[in-house]
Amino acid sequence: MKRHYGDLKPGTRVLLGPGPSDADPRVLRAMVTPVVGHLDPDFLATMDEVQELLRYVYQTENELTFTVPGTGMAGMETCLANLVEPGDRVVVCINGAFGLRMAEIAGRYGAEVVRVEGTWGQVINPAKVKEALAQGQTKLVAIVHVETSTGVIQPIEEIADLAHEHGALLLADTVTSLGGTEVAIDRWGIDASYSGSQKCLGCPPGLSPITFGPRAVAALENRKTPVTSWYFDLSLLRRYWSSERFYHHTAPISLVYAMREALRLVYEEGLEERFRRHREAGEALQTGLQEMGLKLFAQEGHRAPMLTTVLIPEGIDDLKVRRRLLDEYSVEIGGGLGEMKGRLWRIGLMGHSCQRRNVALFLAALQRILQEEGFRG
Amino acid sequence: MKRHYGDLKPGTRVLLGPGPSDADPRVLRAMVTPVVGHLDPDFLATMDEVQELLRYVYQTENELTFTVPGTGMAGMETCLANLVEPGDRVVVCINGAFGLRMAEIAGRYGAEVVRVEGTWGQVINPAKVKEALAQGQTKLVAIVHVETSTGVIQPIEEIADLAHEHGALLLADTVTSLGGTEVAIDRWGIDASYSGSQKCLGCPPGLSPITFGPRAVAALENRKTPVTSWYFDLSLLRRYWSSERFYHHTAPISLVYAMREALRLVYEEGLEERFRRHREAGEALQTGLQEMGLKLFAQEGHRAPMLTTVLIPEGIDDLKVRRRLLDEYSVEIGGGLGEMKGRLWRIGLMGHSCQRRNVALFLAALQRILQEEGFRG
Repeated sequence: MKRHYGDLKPGTRVLLGPGPSDADPRVLRAMVTPVVGHLDPDFLATMDEVQELLRYVYQTENELTFTVPGTGMAGMETCLANLVEPGDRVVVCINGAFGLRMAEIAGRYGAEVVRVEGTWGQVINPAKVKEALAQGQTKLVAIVHVETSTGVIQPIEEIADLAHEHGALLLADTVTSLGGTEVAIDRWGIDASYSGSQKCLGCPPGLSPITFGPRAVAALENRKTPVTSWYFDLSLLRRYWSSERFYHHTAPISLVYAMREALRLVYEEGLEERFRRHREAGEALQTGLQEMGLKLFAQEGHRAPMLTTVLIPEGIDDLKVRRRLLDEYSVEIGGGLGEMKGRLWRIGLMGHSCQRRNVALFLAALQRILQEEGFRG
Repeated sequence: MKRHYGDLKPGTRVLLGPGPSDADPRVLRAMVTPVVGHLDPDFLATMDEVQELLRYVYQTENELTFTVPGTGMAGMETCLANLVEPGDRVVVCINGAFGLRMAEIAGRYGAEVVRVEGTWGQVINPAKVKEALAQGQTKLVAIVHVETSTGVIQPIEEIADLAHEHGALLLADTVTSLGGTEVAIDRWGIDASYSGSQKCLGCPPGLSPITFGPRAVAALENRKTPVTSWYFDLSLLRRYWSSERFYHHTAPISLVYAMREALRLVYEEGLEERFRRHREAGEALQTGLQEMGLKLFAQEGHRAPMLTTVLIPEGIDDLKVRRRLLDEYSVEIGGGLGEMKGRLWRIGLMGHSCQRRNVALFLAALQRILQEEGFRG
């Protein structure tokens, strides 16, 4: 007897975790657009528009700006696999789970990894980066803009300047920040960056925007060894995204449609307005949590607007609260990662999920559940 | 002044190239399902179903059967990156562009690549594989089931047996074959295989199904060195797809929805019926092309049903004909790859595109255009 597979009917969630965020209905509908070939002139025009719009959100003139056909982690690997050659000295700033991952991947591609360790929940101190740079000729400094595991937003400009003074490139992880707060690639001097589709850009997961500036492109072109990864080899990928249209892989057409629509929404809203929306919602959430008697985790003055971290109060069961939020309110939030597992909650207000009504819903739901679980703030 | 970005409106194509194929409207609609988190219990249930259904189309009991978050080329790289360690002897069968790519990628991951060269358009002779195996201890034999650049379908079983007799694993590229013709992983003794979502499975591009049998899993577990690629490291990916649900990347939720719906369609149709549909449409197309006076490229008796290759007649302009098909009939077919560039056309009848009416449309359109271009077959 055949097994029965029914229609898909997942719960209709309000996604307030660290990503994916809710997609605007327009973005979902874009994926119903009939598939065309990856070399169809109509699709090539769409690729051009995606590149233009990505340059807009990245605030860059970089020609090498496009999406890698994989998730945000594919973007991280693409940047490191292409910028690192075996033996290169790479300074990695680590104050959370994604800094750790950068160190791990740089190491796999043969880097001599120098770790600048920071405290989770605090920003990286530029003086420590300077110290690391002074100790040896460095190819690359890698840093996370908004650490998704801690909710800290890191000032980038000073560290970019330090990298350049020491002849190094600056790679910034903008997975959580892009589209929700300023990421000024050119003005800040970021040489390379990767992001994810499913956070403040408001597109479903599966694509990773990247951008490489002139110094980073020169590093690609001056490589002495081929990139180990073929799929992530930018010398091939960029030929598909350039006017040459060299076949490399079959582009994920429907996701590129979704990305174009998500970026179009960003463009229609305007960056300033979009950043203001994220800032105001984040402030409302952070104020509300503190008024409830909860303690925020990220360092004051460096709290990301789109991702708030809050310590789980003594005696409260992490999984039970998150399960109740999901079952009773269909609201998803995130738990802690790595050393913060079980110790904090991560609440995202990203892209289409970033709405004042979601702040109100979440605060009301959490308050009710915490009271029922015996919390007296 | 702001630039205007209008609604997406690509041409509504009939996709008869080497992939992507047309997606059934049900598959497109599945992507409008609201996004949920990658660890949401409802999504985890969907992942389980995708694994069950993939085992059905792969005709396997392999536990390690799931989708890699990237295109078919990501699947190729995943298999090679995980099965190859530096210094391993890998016999790669090359009778087309995708065999060449396997050799390229195996080499990047440090393999000692031994090439068994075949003629493009012909099958690989097992005797040559046997000869290569006899010359040194081999870790892996890699072969393409349906070579997308030539339209040849390769018998696998005998070569799998040879590999095993020599203590080697058998890796088969089933990107073009899976879902359109028999791929009997367990019965044929294929140790590892990767495919693509966008061909006979009828899902949009962006996911790569893979399956690893017990011998291949043992090879993973006995590695002496870590896999260079973090994104494609199966020791991490399989922990997300197992009951552990270890976070590795943010799954491309909407594409997994589409994959489930595409696989559900395969399951509803049944493998035998689906293979018959592809066989009959392929035969009708190949007969029609020959009746028109055209010459098929692939070796008789080894012509793939879902991908037909035909030589471009003397004096006919490849690009002009393909452009006219697209402009006048909104029909996409593919040109030649690699050494066959400009010398043949590739016509796919895959998944939802595999319909008798598409055969009729394509033959009529091609006949008219060729006549107008001066061809007298």
